[in-house]
Amino acid sequence: MDFVDQKRRQLGRTSPEFHCFLNDLPGNDFNTVFKGLPVFYEKLKAEKGSDFGPCFIAGVPGSFYGRLFPRSSLHLVVSSTSLHWLSQVPVGLHSGTNAHLNKGKLYISKTSPPHVLRSYLDQFQLDFSTFLMSRSQEIIIGGRMVLTLIGRKSANPSSEECCFQWDLLANALMDMVHEGLIEEEKVDSLNVPFYSPSPEELMHIIEMEGSFGVNHLETIEVEFNTSNDNDDANDDTKGQQVAKSFRVVIEPMLSEHFGSGGIMDDLFYRYGEQLQEYFTHNKEAKLINVLVSMVRKG
Amino acid sequence: MDFVDQKRRQLGRTSPEFHCFLNDLPGNDFNTVFKGLPVFYEKLKAEKGSDFGPCFIAGVPGSFYGRLFPRSSLHLVVSSTSLHWLSQVPVGLHSGTNAHLNKGKLYISKTSPPHVLRSYLDQFQLDFSTFLMSRSQEIIIGGRMVLTLIGRKSANPSSEECCFQWDLLANALMDMVHEGLIEEEKVDSLNVPFYSPSPEELMHIIEMEGSFGVNHLETIEVEFNTSNDNDDANDDTKGQQVAKSFRVVIEPMLSEHFGSGGIMDDLFYRYGEQLQEYFTHNKEAKLINVLVSMVRKG
Repeated sequence: MDFVDQKRRQLGRTSPEFHCFLNDLPGNDFNTVFKGLPVFYEKLKAEKGSDFGPCFIAGVPGSFYGRLFPRSSLHLVVSSTSLHWLSQVPVGLHSGTNAHLNKGKLYISKTSPPHVLRSYLDQFQLDFSTFLMSRSQEIIIGGRMVLTLIGRKSANPSSEECCFQWDLLANALMDMVHEGLIEEEKVDSLNVPFYSPSPEELMHIIEMEGSFGVNHLETIEVEFNTSNDNDDANDDTKGQQVAKSFRVVIEPMLSEHFGSGGIMDDLFYRYGEQLQEYFTHNKEAKLINVLVSMVRKG
Repeated sequence: MDFVDQKRRQLGRTSPEFHCFLNDLPGNDFNTVFKGLPVFYEKLKAEKGSDFGPCFIAGVPGSFYGRLFPRSSLHLVVSSTSLHWLSQVPVGLHSGTNAHLNKGKLYISKTSPPHVLRSYLDQFQLDFSTFLMSRSQEIIIGGRMVLTLIGRKSANPSSEECCFQWDLLANALMDMVHEGLIEEEKVDSLNVPFYSPSPEELMHIIEMEGSFGVNHLETIEVEFNTSNDNDDANDDTKGQQVAKSFRVVIEPMLSEHFGSGGIMDDLFYRYGEQLQEYFTHNKEAKLINVLVSMVRKG
């Protein structure tokens, strides 16, 4: 068994090793990601060379609003464009009458009553604190965490920069209500589990929770995603392209609420028209991301 | 934010925590396993009570005939009924003429020439050594490994106890060759990537590799799996039930070799008949498993 020594030398190299965990909810499609890993490992090897220590990738199914890893086992946590999704519709908007407080809207809007704004902020505070507390158990002292999420610059949670996408989608839905295609009650009772915080709100929650020290916090203006795998994407207006990229993310949630009976094509076409109209008059419209980098305090 | 303290107490409990990794090849269906985890966690909590520390489950796509985890990161490795699958068809049976040495057979048989036996043992030694070396890097000193795999009691690798299942499947295939349903060359050129070792062979490889000390090694006689989810399973003979349970495991491999064009129902029915005939004359026939428990030496 001469190959034993040879193999042992191959396996026993002492370059740094990376253990990388990919987290998503248990219902998501891990299989497709996993099937792509052999090619990814090959590319990594080709690009980084053999001095780059092996990288072992695992999948972690579960909600990040709770523990996912053993205590003090992580050195770096990265979350990209996820934490604006709440764990649930705000608790304050659950019960019968409260669920209908936000009439004709899906999210915070200029016309939303104060209870709606308060309920959204409360839910975000609860969820983001739970995220921080969960990770604080898992990250070693001195470990780092880098988060990006959709947010806003303004102190006002109903400012246009973070609400216009939802307002326009509500407009499209209400058009369909007026044409008798959707019941008005269905729109009134939908409140999306989403919140776009300001940097100050994030900082306040991080300080209250107390486990992390912030070393960088900024807002970034991002172009709306107009890339699209469809061959006909080039013929689409910017509005239609943005509607399609938004559809990928939110259609499952809307189908569950409105039923999947054929209204989605119509809805997202109307939404694309609304967005196109908006972009025509607001050429500088951008998506606001908040980026925050922090260190686990000792 | 009163809930912060409450949450912290919930999250900060100090009972032991378990990090559990489920490994399979990247092409396997992790999604179904992951979707079942929330219910599994609930059951674990109900059965073990809140004193039982949380158990975090991750999926690890990759071949265990290679590194899967960082150095010295595992305390216990368990592999159940997998290591009899070789990483590939034995290298010694790859090239043109050698691939046809094992005429009319799929695995080692009483009529197999010595080169076939040698090639199978060589491949198993290479694969099992690679497994041991990979795990020896990953398990801490003093860590444990418990393996079960299909094996044999006899020193003779062509003994009936470990070969009759493959012999009978080859019989079924050769019947179909004689009826013109399959090309003979297709049967001659198929050598399954499987090996059922004896305890002595396992012990020899473990000692040669040198990283582990064996503290328990035994063979276990296991009833053939006759449970079946089909409603009509109760009407099946034992032979047909065993053929069905075998089919779940090997049909993908056979379809790839013979093409999926409809011969599988016929083949596995014939195989069930062969098995039933065998069980009638060999009422005590059992599947032999080898169980080995070892410790990572310092």
